[in-house]
Amino acid sequence: MKYWNERISTIEPYTPGEQPQDSNWIKLNTNENPWEPAPSVLESIMNAAAANLNRYPDPNARLFCSAAAQYCKVPESYIFAGNGSDEILAFAFGALFKPPIVFPDVTYSFYPIYAELWSLPYETVPLSDNFVIYPEMLLRPCGGVMLCNPNAPTGIALPRERVLEIVSYHQKQNTVVIVDEAYVEFGAESVVRDTEQYDNLLVVRTLSKSKSIAGLRAGYAVGNPDLIAGLKRIRDMVNSYTMNTVSQLAGAAALLAEEYYAAKTSLLIRTREATRDRLIAGGWQVLPSSSNFLFMSLPGTNGVELYSAFKERRILVRYWDKPKIRNHIRVTIGTPEEMDIFCQTALELAGSNRNAQGA
Amino acid sequence: MKYWNERISTIEPYTPGEQPQDSNWIKLNTNENPWEPAPSVLESIMNAAAANLNRYPDPNARLFCSAAAQYCKVPESYIFAGNGSDEILAFAFGALFKPPIVFPDVTYSFYPIYAELWSLPYETVPLSDNFVIYPEMLLRPCGGVMLCNPNAPTGIALPRERVLEIVSYHQKQNTVVIVDEAYVEFGAESVVRDTEQYDNLLVVRTLSKSKSIAGLRAGYAVGNPDLIAGLKRIRDMVNSYTMNTVSQLAGAAALLAEEYYAAKTSLLIRTREATRDRLIAGGWQVLPSSSNFLFMSLPGTNGVELYSAFKERRILVRYWDKPKIRNHIRVTIGTPEEMDIFCQTALELAGSNRNAQGA
Repeated sequence: MKYWNERISTIEPYTPGEQPQDSNWIKLNTNENPWEPAPSVLESIMNAAAANLNRYPDPNARLFCSAAAQYCKVPESYIFAGNGSDEILAFAFGALFKPPIVFPDVTYSFYPIYAELWSLPYETVPLSDNFVIYPEMLLRPCGGVMLCNPNAPTGIALPRERVLEIVSYHQKQNTVVIVDEAYVEFGAESVVRDTEQYDNLLVVRTLSKSKSIAGLRAGYAVGNPDLIAGLKRIRDMVNSYTMNTVSQLAGAAALLAEEYYAAKTSLLIRTREATRDRLIAGGWQVLPSSSNFLFMSLPGTNGVELYSAFKERRILVRYWDKPKIRNHIRVTIGTPEEMDIFCQTALELAGSNRNAQGA
Repeated sequence: MKYWNERISTIEPYTPGEQPQDSNWIKLNTNENPWEPAPSVLESIMNAAAANLNRYPDPNARLFCSAAAQYCKVPESYIFAGNGSDEILAFAFGALFKPPIVFPDVTYSFYPIYAELWSLPYETVPLSDNFVIYPEMLLRPCGGVMLCNPNAPTGIALPRERVLEIVSYHQKQNTVVIVDEAYVEFGAESVVRDTEQYDNLLVVRTLSKSKSIAGLRAGYAVGNPDLIAGLKRIRDMVNSYTMNTVSQLAGAAALLAEEYYAAKTSLLIRTREATRDRLIAGGWQVLPSSSNFLFMSLPGTNGVELYSAFKERRILVRYWDKPKIRNHIRVTIGTPEEMDIFCQTALELAGSNRNAQGA
């Protein structure tokens, strides 16, 4: 720490979920998709070996942006491409937010870090006791609103109309609202096409979840060309070529393979609902979810105990030692087979927990 | 610009060189390598399609770091991996520099932008009239020194001993010196192994130039583990997974294909020297170069005129409308065939320039 400057000495960085390099784990801790990418994505990677890899990528990733525009049904000028949605969020905070900013107290834990990175003071608004966002609480003058919909790590979504109330209020104040739709494909209503009506709305999306290519790092933002131009400006203060040639090609292929992914998404949603029913029947408390994960707790235990109990059985889940959510774990939906093993373990834990409580 | 905040409204971003998407150009404007990557790199990309691309990459890119450590003959704990060296430089400025910082007045034009991005005031020290860095001028108390060696866009290198004088002076003051060795493989002396002796020395390298994979975005930094830990902290305030799975695999393969790249580098150096001799014989002024480009001027013309004259002939070169260098162009070394066409055009221009001057 001898040479660390004040910024990195004082801001506590994000801790990504564990990424064990050995197999033998049921990995339900980082909201990855259990299915491999579409065959056309794998083909595009093989073909990329024949691209001019000695040349820099297209800095504006036009081929990828064109696919994203088609996928979202918006003009291509509304798309900004990036090396995963985390990077895009970091850019968006740094380019479009002014102090102070506002977001819910329980949400993606990277947001307060972006705020600190760019020296943006922030205020949080509390969720309801059942982890629902009150849109009214986000109707207050500020320099930017960050909303994750469906929210993480709760999985609960706001309807489109409620999101647009927030966006509309802040448009009148010339304030940007960023909506992080990382999980939207798993059952929430998107506001992506409302970017054409609301010039203060930036929607951020990732291909890591619904498109099964977390390993390729691809994300995009959708917004009015003025917002997109702002994102390009800050990108060009950091790294002009953020998305590599392979990710551009493979990402475009993924966005266009709608049939393949629709089938996988639908299977995942069925698996999620079956898992939730089984857990609730076994004594777990499980929030409703519009995402590819479940947020749950078992009365009489807490998050770190549950995390450890699953880890002993080679199942990785995620917990946070933070106010309001320290009794919960977040569990990614895997394959039906993985969720069957998870449920068996979860029901065993509920059983021994009941016995311990009864004893 | 309605929603741009102060940062992106006031800082002028970097302008990358043109990346035309049609072929038919002799592209000598962004210091790419004219040769395709090693066969083992292309194989590793094909194999990457079989990796678990639905999973996040290893955030610390250990396989890639291990190859970089072997390549540089330093411990693996001395390596930080990133999505190209520009991103690593942005992180290094944001994590390790304190105000004010110092660098030469003629150098890579991204440095002042990184400084502004992180609100770091900077002072520049002048090069000599023949574009050489005086190391003495960098021996002054400050919060960080940025040195590009060989320097860009001049191509001139300092000997290792002179670089170490600068590093040693600043070690006594607890100040970090970053040495950007993007072009070092083309004929300069590296200080990469001196990181073991100087804990204030961070060396930044790229695979875009000597390893022919600009399209894959791969770079690394070499330094004492304390510096590396600092870089990881700021990375985890932006994007935990910067280098994707394909780039990690392909980058490792490139670093290990030493024989292939040694032959290409040696051919490139021979082409550079033959080009320089021919241009000088034809009336051009060409700086000596330890890089994969030449910095040159033609008496009686300026950079933008030369750029335009070459562009008319479908040859892309780079110029800057900036003090001290506005009469120069920077020309990347391409294949022998490309440089033959370039030289023919350059000698024609010199001839018509002489005629115009004589008339």
